[in-house]
Amino acid sequence: VNLVLFEPHEVAGSSTVSVSGARAEHLLKVLHAVPGRQVRVGVADGPLGTGTVESVGDRSVELRCTFDEAAPPRPRIDLLLALPRPKVMRRLWAQLAALGVGRIMLTNAARVERDYFDAHTLQPEHYRPLLIEGLQQARDTHLPIVSVHKQFKVLLEDALDSLFAGGLRLVADPRGDASIASVVRAQASNRVLLAVGPEGGWNDFERRLLETHGFQTATMGRRTLRSDTACIALLALVQSGLLE
Amino acid sequence: VNLVLFEPHEVAGSSTVSVSGARAEHLLKVLHAVPGRQVRVGVADGPLGTGTVESVGDRSVELRCTFDEAAPPRPRIDLLLALPRPKVMRRLWAQLAALGVGRIMLTNAARVERDYFDAHTLQPEHYRPLLIEGLQQARDTHLPIVSVHKQFKVLLEDALDSLFAGGLRLVADPRGDASIASVVRAQASNRVLLAVGPEGGWNDFERRLLETHGFQTATMGRRTLRSDTACIALLALVQSGLLE
Repeated sequence: VNLVLFEPHEVAGSSTVSVSGARAEHLLKVLHAVPGRQVRVGVADGPLGTGTVESVGDRSVELRCTFDEAAPPRPRIDLLLALPRPKVMRRLWAQLAALGVGRIMLTNAARVERDYFDAHTLQPEHYRPLLIEGLQQARDTHLPIVSVHKQFKVLLEDALDSLFAGGLRLVADPRGDASIASVVRAQASNRVLLAVGPEGGWNDFERRLLETHGFQTATMGRRTLRSDTACIALLALVQSGLLE
Repeated sequence: VNLVLFEPHEVAGSSTVSVSGARAEHLLKVLHAVPGRQVRVGVADGPLGTGTVESVGDRSVELRCTFDEAAPPRPRIDLLLALPRPKVMRRLWAQLAALGVGRIMLTNAARVERDYFDAHTLQPEHYRPLLIEGLQQARDTHLPIVSVHKQFKVLLEDALDSLFAGGLRLVADPRGDASIASVVRAQASNRVLLAVGPEGGWNDFERRLLETHGFQTATMGRRTLRSDTACIALLALVQSGLLE
């Protein structure tokens, strides 16, 4: 943990925050917190700052916090992801937050199993701590905004324009010709929406629908990757393209 | 599984191969193997080809195989990785093989815990099936060559030149200025050796030693990532740079 991230209600009203649970354990055992020691702190969707250890208990730590540093800029990439199987999705949350994603839209597709949508990992009380874990790793405070869409067609036709207003829409496809980096560099967009399909790929109907709604095809090569590996690799390529 | 990969001894001497265990289960339950059906097959470190289902048992499948397609080219990236904690390393094996890596050199560093080297996941009988799982996903047959180095200095001073003879040596560092993609593109090397440090980073001694041995510093941004996320993202960036 490179940052201790608080929920807004934890820091409301007082500059001294009492930390318990996993965060306290990490402060005590890994960072060897003693009175006077300083750690980086932040507020979910808010500013960054510094926390000074005031006192240390068996299982709790008191921090006096000042939040005097603006939040890092909002991540410039949004992700439209065909819902992976629960085990893979569970592993992805923290990694997506660490890489930096503005929005995560999880969608159905022909090659997504219906019962993936019943998975425990789609409950905010399950994924929010994982997103926070990723933000603490990467020293960011921007929680990705998560939405779940059981109908791909409705998402594309009715919801997408308000969820992603302007910018480059990209769909990753092993059969494409242009590389992700070259497409992102060539367009010089401020924001990118990246669509990542199920492991079996989008079907023809979905591919056409994406195309109709402005998605350009780009590729990272011919190898078929697991959803989580593909997401991480593709996000890194889009980010790199945005920075060049 | 997009490819059924055999060990060389399984296909020695006969064109008919009997498959049992997890591969048979996958053939029966996911691919619904029936006599006459064709699947992609390959031999570890050997050619690709086609398998035709000859007969199907309760828990086994007989395939008649022809191996008539050359193996894909050997991956052009090698990885020098400060050994991550066992849980993270276990998750990495299949993903590294899927992304495509020629060699994996696992090394000690000041910020690597000594007991990570005792982990079960460093035993070939544990990681080889995971590497094969990744190759089957990505339709490759090249098993990464794995070596474990308990002394970083000895690795760099005595072993490295024979393990990685010619090509670009890169070390990923959040404090670097040049982007991974730009450094790889500018050098137009045939092979790249990518060094990825522990989550706490290389220390100054290690950084200097890498520099002395020809490693150039490049960055993928300021965010600190978990070892597995960082490896996947960095490998994708190097690959993309090699292809442009």
